Amino acid sequence: MAPASPKSSTRVAIQGEKGSFSEAAARHLLGRNGLELLCCASFADVFSALRRGAAATAVIPIENTLAGSVAANYDLLRREAVTIVAETNLRIRHQLITPPGVSLRAIRRVLSHPVALDQCRRFLRRHPRWEAVPFYDTAGSVQYIVEQGLRDAAAIAGVPAAKAYGARVVAANIEDNPRNFTRFLRLLPANAAVTAASPSGRSQQTHKVSVVFATRNQPGALCRCLNVFALRGIDLSRIESRPTPGRPWEYSFYLDFFGALSQPTVRQALSDLAAVSDELKILGSYPAVRKEPSRGRAHLGH
Amino acid sequence: MAPASPKSSTRVAIQGEKGSFSEAAARHLLGRNGLELLCCASFADVFSALRRGAAATAVIPIENTLAGSVAANYDLLRREAVTIVAETNLRIRHQLITPPGVSLRAIRRVLSHPVALDQCRRFLRRHPRWEAVPFYDTAGSVQYIVEQGLRDAAAIAGVPAAKAYGARVVAANIEDNPRNFTRFLRLLPANAAVTAASPSGRSQQTHKVSVVFATRNQPGALCRCLNVFALRGIDLSRIESRPTPGRPWEYSFYLDFFGALSQPTVRQALSDLAAVSDELKILGSYPAVRKEPSRGRAHLGH
Repeated sequence: MAPASPKSSTRVAIQGEKGSFSEAAARHLLGRNGLELLCCASFADVFSALRRGAAATAVIPIENTLAGSVAANYDLLRREAVTIVAETNLRIRHQLITPPGVSLRAIRRVLSHPVALDQCRRFLRRHPRWEAVPFYDTAGSVQYIVEQGLRDAAAIAGVPAAKAYGARVVAANIEDNPRNFTRFLRLLPANAAVTAASPSGRSQQTHKVSVVFATRNQPGALCRCLNVFALRGIDLSRIESRPTPGRPWEYSFYLDFFGALSQPTVRQALSDLAAVSDELKILGSYPAVRKEPSRGRAHLGH
Repeated sequence: MAPASPKSSTRVAIQGEKGSFSEAAARHLLGRNGLELLCCASFADVFSALRRGAAATAVIPIENTLAGSVAANYDLLRREAVTIVAETNLRIRHQLITPPGVSLRAIRRVLSHPVALDQCRRFLRRHPRWEAVPFYDTAGSVQYIVEQGLRDAAAIAGVPAAKAYGARVVAANIEDNPRNFTRFLRLLPANAAVTAASPSGRSQQTHKVSVVFATRNQPGALCRCLNVFALRGIDLSRIESRPTPGRPWEYSFYLDFFGALSQPTVRQALSDLAAVSDELKILGSYPAVRKEPSRGRAHLGH
């Protein structure tokens, strides 16, 4: 008998279709060749594929410099048994794409993910007769207009989506704001996580740790939690709050900070954090990528 | 000649249609009778109505205890010249609603706002043959299925939406989690804001101030900002971060804290905050409502 699903050992789960920004991020993180994609309709399906062993790894968007956090993925990271092992930042460029033979003048409706439609609002305003139609995925909207043979529709997606479905770009780089980047995370199932090689030397600046915790319902709670990092000169790069499910008006906080779990100061900070917070979970420790455009690293500080 | 648009002096702008949760919140904040609604398709339209004087006031949702922040409204609060003058919390109960004469068995698709569909996922899973169709508004989805005379469609919305369009509730309180509350804010144009009567006595606990600021790109920035409140024993009730537009990987922070602008300690804290942050904007000062369910006030502390 063949071993169960040998292919799943190399398969990467993403949300969206072939040609999506998630695929581009996966290629950036895992190499351009020999990537087998498992395309999922929702982020919950991506985490489920990892849990069931249908994919060996997953790549998910976590924040965009214009749209902000991908809230669903923050909630899933807390709930599911996964570990973050890498991050990357992708420049997002939106293209107006039509099926072959459909001209700009024939367009009556434009399909795309709501965030992409929103990020091209200025371009779309110049064409008031076009109807903007929300779709579950950018690349999926290209696939849809091509496969349905629509003669009056365009889609907004990246260049790889046009290539993947034999469609063509009829207006390039139509995003309102060029400073449009999405940060993606690579995940492994928590039990499959390999121990990262201990970074040394300048590791505090080249590695990151991500954690989530709830604060106790008492005065000073959040400040006490942040002070465990301030005390030790550990820089925060990100703080995000989400409601704690089932506890109205209480919040969980997600922190990313520079450092590695192998460092004694980081371990001590996390031990102190566990003492002053509720439900601390370490989400991962991974190499930090340089943020683009390079204007020096953004600090929230501690 | 009649004065310009006399009606606009009592008109309240909301996103969504008659019968929406925003209307219920507006009635709670402004009284049940004689409310003239200006129903807007988007939150941007609500703020625009206020700016143009088409409405005298506006009521917007800002956070839900399950779905989290309404990001678009946080961004608009920073950008537009408005002042928050009141808040309220609304218990959200979702109903499955059909046009008169359409039975549960006839349903093939269910329309609603994506957040409402998401909050009824468990109920919808029990009916795998129903297609969930995202719509721009809960009450608007009821209006649509009634006005279109659809015989195979249901909508998810509140009881007032069923009443507003002569539809009926065929399954009641179908939300997954009953601890479902939305916090709404009442806004005035910044130039029309009346000075609130100075609260006295227990004002620190019965009033709130909302602010937004950016942190400087240097270590310790966020902690320094929060410490101006910690120093003075001022309790934070909420912190939310959003990307700063056009400055990738930099963030703006929204704080709600207990206190009133008339208090010297609050004025001193804000003066210190202005010195250690960038682009501080005071979004409003208003009476705090007791949070339900009453488990003691949630503290983030300082």
